[in-house]
Amino acid sequence: MQTVVSCGSGELVSNLRIVVWNEFIHERKPGKAQEIYPDGIHQALAQFLQKESNWSVTTATQDQPEHGLPEQRLADTDVLVWWGHLGHKQVSDQVVDAVQKRVLEGMGLLVLHSGHFSKIFQRLLGTSCTLQWREAGEKERLWVCNPGHAIVQGLPAYFEIPHEEMYGEPFNIPSPEETIFMSWFQGGEVFRSGCCWRRGNGKIFYFRPGHETFPTYHQPEVQLVIKNGIRWAAPTGRWVDMITNVKASPEGIRQER
Amino acid sequence: MQTVVSCGSGELVSNLRIVVWNEFIHERKPGKAQEIYPDGIHQALAQFLQKESNWSVTTATQDQPEHGLPEQRLADTDVLVWWGHLGHKQVSDQVVDAVQKRVLEGMGLLVLHSGHFSKIFQRLLGTSCTLQWREAGEKERLWVCNPGHAIVQGLPAYFEIPHEEMYGEPFNIPSPEETIFMSWFQGGEVFRSGCCWRRGNGKIFYFRPGHETFPTYHQPEVQLVIKNGIRWAAPTGRWVDMITNVKASPEGIRQER
Amino acid sequence: MQTVVSCGSGELVSNLRIVVWNEFIHERKPGKAQEIYPDGIHQALAQFLQKESNWSVTTATQDQPEHGLPEQRLADTDVLVWWGHLGHKQVSDQVVDAVQKRVLEGMGLLVLHSGHFSKIFQRLLGTSCTLQWREAGEKERLWVCNPGHAIVQGLPAYFEIPHEEMYGEPFNIPSPEETIFMSWFQGGEVFRSGCCWRRGNGKIFYFRPGHETFPTYHQPEVQLVIKNGIRWAAPTGRWVDMITNVKASPEGIRQER
Amino acid sequence: MQTVVSCGSGELVSNLRIVVWNEFIHERKPGKAQEIYPDGIHQALAQFLQKESNWSVTTATQDQPEHGLPEQRLADTDVLVWWGHLGHKQVSDQVVDAVQKRVLEGMGLLVLHSGHFSKIFQRLLGTSCTLQWREAGEKERLWVCNPGHAIVQGLPAYFEIPHEEMYGEPFNIPSPEETIFMSWFQGGEVFRSGCCWRRGNGKIFYFRPGHETFPTYHQPEVQLVIKNGIRWAAPTGRWVDMITNVKASPEGIRQER
Repeated sequence: MQTVVSCGSGELVSNLRIVVWNEFIHERKPGKAQEIYPDGIHQALAQFLQKESNWSVTTATQDQPEHGLPEQRLADTDVLVWWGHLGHKQVSDQVVDAVQKRVLEGMGLLVLHSGHFSKIFQRLLGTSCTLQWREAGEKERLWVCNPGHAIVQGLPAYFEIPHEEMYGEPFNIPSPEETIFMSWFQGGEVFRSGCCWRRGNGKIFYFRPGHETFPTYHQPEVQLVIKNGIRWAAPTGRWVDMITNVKASPEGIRQER
Repeated sequence: MQTVVSCGSGELVSNLRIVVWNEFIHERKPGKAQEIYPDGIHQALAQFLQKESNWSVTTATQDQPEHGLPEQRLADTDVLVWWGHLGHKQVSDQVVDAVQKRVLEGMGLLVLHSGHFSKIFQRLLGTSCTLQWREAGEKERLWVCNPGHAIVQGLPAYFEIPHEEMYGEPFNIPSPEETIFMSWFQGGEVFRSGCCWRRGNGKIFYFRPGHETFPTYHQPEVQLVIKNGIRWAAPTGRWVDMITNVKASPEGIRQER
Repeated sequence: MQTVVSCGSGELVSNLRIVVWNEFIHERKPGKAQEIYPDGIHQALAQFLQKESNWSVTTATQDQPEHGLPEQRLADTDVLVWWGHLGHKQVSDQVVDAVQKRVLEGMGLLVLHSGHFSKIFQRLLGTSCTLQWREAGEKERLWVCNPGHAIVQGLPAYFEIPHEEMYGEPFNIPSPEETIFMSWFQGGEVFRSGCCWRRGNGKIFYFRPGHETFPTYHQPEVQLVIKNGIRWAAPTGRWVDMITNVKASPEGIRQER
Repeated sequence: MQTVVSCGSGELVSNLRIVVWNEFIHERKPGKAQEIYPDGIHQALAQFLQKESNWSVTTATQDQPEHGLPEQRLADTDVLVWWGHLGHKQVSDQVVDAVQKRVLEGMGLLVLHSGHFSKIFQRLLGTSCTLQWREAGEKERLWVCNPGHAIVQGLPAYFEIPHEEMYGEPFNIPSPEETIFMSWFQGGEVFRSGCCWRRGNGKIFYFRPGHETFPTYHQPEVQLVIKNGIRWAAPTGRWVDMITNVKASPEGIRQER
């Protein structure tokens, strides 16, 4: 059953239903990713998200049947968080179709880090979402471009992540509808590291940080952004079928014929 | 003191502070406008808005000192609703400056009908906002373009206003960030009758209907749109000074020098 | 070899290479479509386009190998015009991939009428592009929203198509970057009938009219819009690979390390 | 008389009429600005622009009557380039009105560097256009975000300006319709240093570099960007009055009444 979520209306939200999706590939093998996220990136994210009262947070991984996202589960999801990297190509088109359909109906979507190259992100944006990259553990500084925006509440003018994988422009995305963060990298590049778009009734927030060999998702500012992003992306209206063309009345609106 | 307003976070909004501004010129003279809105358009709007619990609704008119909008009052306003027509030119630039400043800080703004030609609307959009018009009391049909949007919640696919003043394209506005309604007029024209933009931290919603010689603001669908629009435009973040350039530290961010 | 096309620079364009693609299904069977377009919609379009000096215009149809759009041909195309309806589902994903790649590199794309539901249009926009429709041969009036725009040059404030298939809002598209036309239908609906977006280096123009059982593409204003649209969508820069992530230098920009 | 300027149509542009406006205050006093631009920034810009065949380039300065921009001159201008800094407040509102009117009619506008805080830029965008800044002569690296765009033709992936004044986010502008450049500063900040918007029929390009105490306008890449920007901003359609509301026929479009 739907959960009504409203903005600024005084209505108490009873339950925001969040699913954290992670391909869960890197962390299964011995190495840095496993050390930092022993139960998987999805569990690390779910742990801090679950601290919010009124939020019901569950996880899903790529190896599960239907990648953990059967239609009924998606129907009961208000916001989906997506982390993928090595497994993009193996995500089934059927699941991508289903997720896209739900976003158009109103489900919010947060895409993290290497998810820029996921099928679902490319599908919703229509571009390749390519970029330049470098794995050198350099510093990233995220500047807030939009200081009154819901997503940046509680943040200072900028915050730093001591070690990250660099992503640099050009970032082949459609012009962002809102630019939230821009990053400065120690190695000399820049990147639009927080961007928002609307597709159908759904809201999409791309947030760049989160390379699997660094403890980025344990950092407080990063956790705050993801929480704020989920709030921002939460549905604000009723779910609507956006998939079917509608045949209008043959006579037109009564008075005109 | 600020009222925190959040989206989908489960936080209860304690008090949304709304000011309804009307030039209050037509309704003071005997005629149709006075018959339909004997206490002024502002009072008609305030009456149905006041029914929302948690909303504090007051009014202001052009003839008041500082047009009823001294800086302290604006500082305590979350959303301003604006109806103007004959008096646009006499609105003082000082008040327009102050309203613009508050919108950039985060105050929401609803501009109604002939307010398309108000100084504040032209100021925030940067264009002339001209259009074509006809006073013939023809029918207007407003189609919802964005069915999941917060502003259209509770509305059917379209609703009609039996008699209105026609506004037709071209409407000289910057490309709307979101198009909410499009109108069909009996006389043959079309118009983008519900449009949204963001300026600084503030949200702006233009809503076309509301000619003073028709009972448009007594119509339930119109009232619902205005209520939803106020909710949508409510500030979602902290108030931020957006007026002053900031001199950065002469040495740059410590580690870089 | 590329054709340099520049805006307002005084450079003479040597040759704009246009391909008109049509599924060519309706017109092959006896009926209204065949009477109006005996050689196919693609030939009707190509005929008036070929009158432009400096334009090289060829056609392609769905039944041809690779739908007439092998990679080499696409590489030599500056603007692709697309009309499809019954055959959307049978267009191969491989060809859609190739067309998308070329648009991101810089090829212009005009999508006509029922092409709103084509794979390529949905692919580039990321939404379902659904709408409401009615086949009743009613009148369509297209209003110009953007009078100085390149696409509307030579047009009056509005023009009419006496008989067309109605398309009505809501049109499930991302917010148009530019809205060129809005249509008024005799039966009571409205529609954003001319819209522009950019994806990668490519420009996309959607133009609504063109139901196969009406002589729409024989109408002078419609032909003018399509010509102007092709000019607008022509590439303005160099072709650039937008498909591959780029690995940056490991040391970063020299001076920073 | 108007000069027709078309995109990709094969039409030869006979004459693009450009005016370079500079407040011409710094360079009149002994100091670094005068050493680098002895005849004023406007002359330095005009010199390289004049090398284009088919371009007629003249200059104007703030101290001239009507700031060198009487209505007749503006009527004969296709693209206006604006550099201002100390004199913003003394630019007369009357001239700002006239320039805005011409941009809405179709005149292109390039705003350079400290022109971010000019009345005309704030007027057309509707925001305060504030930012953070530092005069330390640090290095600026401009990254191309949009590799196929007309404005970046002939540029590599990035170029550097050895010494510039830093501008940093947040840059209080409406969301850019197109983001062309993003800058990395040695001191740790980032900035959207090349942005495009459309207002009415006019195109606006903001380009950040150009502090008066550095030889930025003598640098080849910077000159190329300004040339490309002028081409991009050149009018592509007919001039249209965008200032006056239009009263439509009382009976509506004939057939509807």
